[in-house]
Amino acid sequence: MRLGVRIVAQVRNRRQALQGLAAGGLAAAWPRTGRAAADLSALRIDAARLRADLEGLSVYGRPAGGTFADGVSRVAYSDADVAGRAYVMGLLREAGGTPRIDAAGNIRVRREGTVAGLKPIMIGSHIDSVPGGGNFDGDVGSLSALEVLRTLNAAKAPLRHPLELAIWSNEEGGTIGSGWAAGVLGKDALEGMGPTGVRRADGLRKIGGDPDRLADAVIPKGSLAAYIELHIEQSGLLEKAGVPIGVVDGIVAIDEYEVEIKGFANHAGTTPMPDRRNALLAAAKLIEAVQEEVTREPGRQVGTVGHLEVSPNARNVVPGLVRHTIELRDLDAPKLKAIAQRIQARAAAIAAETKTEITIRSADMDPPAIATPRLQKHIEAAAAGLGLKTMHLPSGAGHDAAMLADVADMAMIFVPSVAGISHSPHELTHWEDCANGANVLLQTVLRIDAE
Amino acid sequence: MRLGVRIVAQVRNRRQALQGLAAGGLAAAWPRTGRAAADLSALRIDAARLRADLEGLSVYGRPAGGTFADGVSRVAYSDADVAGRAYVMGLLREAGGTPRIDAAGNIRVRREGTVAGLKPIMIGSHIDSVPGGGNFDGDVGSLSALEVLRTLNAAKAPLRHPLELAIWSNEEGGTIGSGWAAGVLGKDALEGMGPTGVRRADGLRKIGGDPDRLADAVIPKGSLAAYIELHIEQSGLLEKAGVPIGVVDGIVAIDEYEVEIKGFANHAGTTPMPDRRNALLAAAKLIEAVQEEVTREPGRQVGTVGHLEVSPNARNVVPGLVRHTIELRDLDAPKLKAIAQRIQARAAAIAAETKTEITIRSADMDPPAIATPRLQKHIEAAAAGLGLKTMHLPSGAGHDAAMLADVADMAMIFVPSVAGISHSPHELTHWEDCANGANVLLQTVLRIDAE
Repeated sequence: MRLGVRIVAQVRNRRQALQGLAAGGLAAAWPRTGRAAADLSALRIDAARLRADLEGLSVYGRPAGGTFADGVSRVAYSDADVAGRAYVMGLLREAGGTPRIDAAGNIRVRREGTVAGLKPIMIGSHIDSVPGGGNFDGDVGSLSALEVLRTLNAAKAPLRHPLELAIWSNEEGGTIGSGWAAGVLGKDALEGMGPTGVRRADGLRKIGGDPDRLADAVIPKGSLAAYIELHIEQSGLLEKAGVPIGVVDGIVAIDEYEVEIKGFANHAGTTPMPDRRNALLAAAKLIEAVQEEVTREPGRQVGTVGHLEVSPNARNVVPGLVRHTIELRDLDAPKLKAIAQRIQARAAAIAAETKTEITIRSADMDPPAIATPRLQKHIEAAAAGLGLKTMHLPSGAGHDAAMLADVADMAMIFVPSVAGISHSPHELTHWEDCANGANVLLQTVLRIDAE
Repeated sequence: MRLGVRIVAQVRNRRQALQGLAAGGLAAAWPRTGRAAADLSALRIDAARLRADLEGLSVYGRPAGGTFADGVSRVAYSDADVAGRAYVMGLLREAGGTPRIDAAGNIRVRREGTVAGLKPIMIGSHIDSVPGGGNFDGDVGSLSALEVLRTLNAAKAPLRHPLELAIWSNEEGGTIGSGWAAGVLGKDALEGMGPTGVRRADGLRKIGGDPDRLADAVIPKGSLAAYIELHIEQSGLLEKAGVPIGVVDGIVAIDEYEVEIKGFANHAGTTPMPDRRNALLAAAKLIEAVQEEVTREPGRQVGTVGHLEVSPNARNVVPGLVRHTIELRDLDAPKLKAIAQRIQARAAAIAAETKTEITIRSADMDPPAIATPRLQKHIEAAAAGLGLKTMHLPSGAGHDAAMLADVADMAMIFVPSVAGISHSPHELTHWEDCANGANVLLQTVLRIDAE
């Protein structure tokens, strides 16, 4: 019951915002001239409406009895995902769009341009979340793209290029919807499991996609003028620097390794220290070596041992076997390779020192997705035009934009995350920063359109 | 079928050995004079009979289709335990004993002495095993005690003191039967779970004990002349030194600690290295600190981090929480305390360095059980009389003897374990070493009897 009341209140807020717009909001004040794009440089999104949309979306997957601050579990292919997608499609229709669901489950809207033959400018993000996630992650970029569409439509502002909007499906499960759209993933990925524990093919059907016609969703290489994605930073760099807009240099390469350390399990009471072949002691030394080798040179590279299992894992037994992961990330793939080689050399020395056998196996290597400088310059100029400072930074997290980089020129706009917290109910981007990001997205689109 | 055939063959071996004895074996050759104990110094156990008994016992709990080399799972309170106990009680009866099961489930036999009022000399060990254990652990000491009884009876050799023999119940579950007999454990321990996952009270009933009359099993403090236990070493010291007999200085103190390290779980891609509060990195440093502080001073002390859990334990998340154990063992309790204090100081520095919170909680402290020098001298003399070299060493593992030390003067005889392997099917003590141990046990009893 309480939940129902809250939804109504939020819808009312959004309607009020729309009424405000009709009665003479910023966008409505724009002269409906159909003139050149340069004239639109004073066009602004509606910050209150964007906030109302984010709050409206937040109820789909909200913990029972919770509030906005309790975050969201809108896991891909779940009922909450289906409901949240229906809500966003409703907003897109209200904004004058005609949303369709492509075969890969992505929500797509196309706004035609005025010059025949120009390639579309694409904007978008995702609205699925991790379990126990926050209300900003992909939502800010998705609803800002909607807000850009709505602002342009409300202002009857023509673009020379078609504008394509995409809400990608199942981003948190591994950029699956955008991976299919970019042709990076194929039919094999249908057999994998979605985050709700159902086969992706079944999850895809549930959200309106068509696993039998995946190829129809593919965006041909070179068919877009640009792909621009706004996202929260998920790191603390912008907040710490007091800079409202991040210009992403690229999405980092991710090298994953699986490590197996074989020692010999033996009685913790009767095995003298010099005779031990302690796999956990070797792992401890290797964890420290990873930290040292990653931080040995300047830069933003990161390295993490996040998963570790000990066997037999008993208080009174010297550990005989440890398995753990190593994950390295940076924009500079050769730098990662050099770090991995140094770690390999350290591991060999540790194995000899601890009388263990250490095997490091490469499990996965995602190449970096580098942003297009020409598009980055448009973001910088758009921010400057709005009086907003910018800062260049890498994206340590993966994004749909990394998939789109395979078929199009790509750039990303970041807005600050308070304390760098993400994938958590405590995830927070201030409303003002959300609005700044949406305005930079709008003005970037206009500048690309004017190229 | 193959198993049945093997049992018959082993029983035949044992009968042959007994026939050999009757026909004029070493023990039978002893003049049946009833003279003073000193006359018995040439008395020897029968090595072939001891081996046949060990092989006979090994079939109870043997893996299906396996051989002696495949080890044994004769876990306390299991059907295999019940069958193995019945087998040993049969051997005790054949040896002329009258076995009874005390309220704590221990198999007990008493042989009367010739001098009224003298306290009994007690010998024994256990026959239960860990899951997937070996055929030597407690079996060698138990069946050697039986062999001592049989040798004395066959020779009609009188002792001044009564001789008590005990096969303690549920040793591997935490020296439970001997703990009850020594009054170290009480009724509370009945509620705990045995190794087969049944309540100890129920397990105790299954093997013929009486949970309602536990007090009847208690051996009053000071009521024994001595307790002597023969056991395999479970470490590689004797084998490495080429010494057949170990004189145990005591059973080590065990100090157990539980460590909790609180960091902050965060995205492994977006959290810069300097901003991390990585609980697993802190744990790695602490594991190394434990190793360094334990090995900083000479001695046989050991320290182990055997159990460790990481949370959330995901490849792409900086670990936010680690829980692990620390176990320290040595005969010298104050030395352990000093090591623990140094580890505590190292943990404080590591917490500051890694921006984590480290809590070290004392979970258990078992005091050392020190062997009685008078009894150790008897063991040395017994071994010397047999032409066997001895070496002093601590027991890093717990034993029933540690419980008995609470009520009686105690000493232990160790025989070599090949490569120090124990609690494993690969556990191995050569037959010659088993026989040496049994002869040292026999001669030690005779020397105590002559005091």
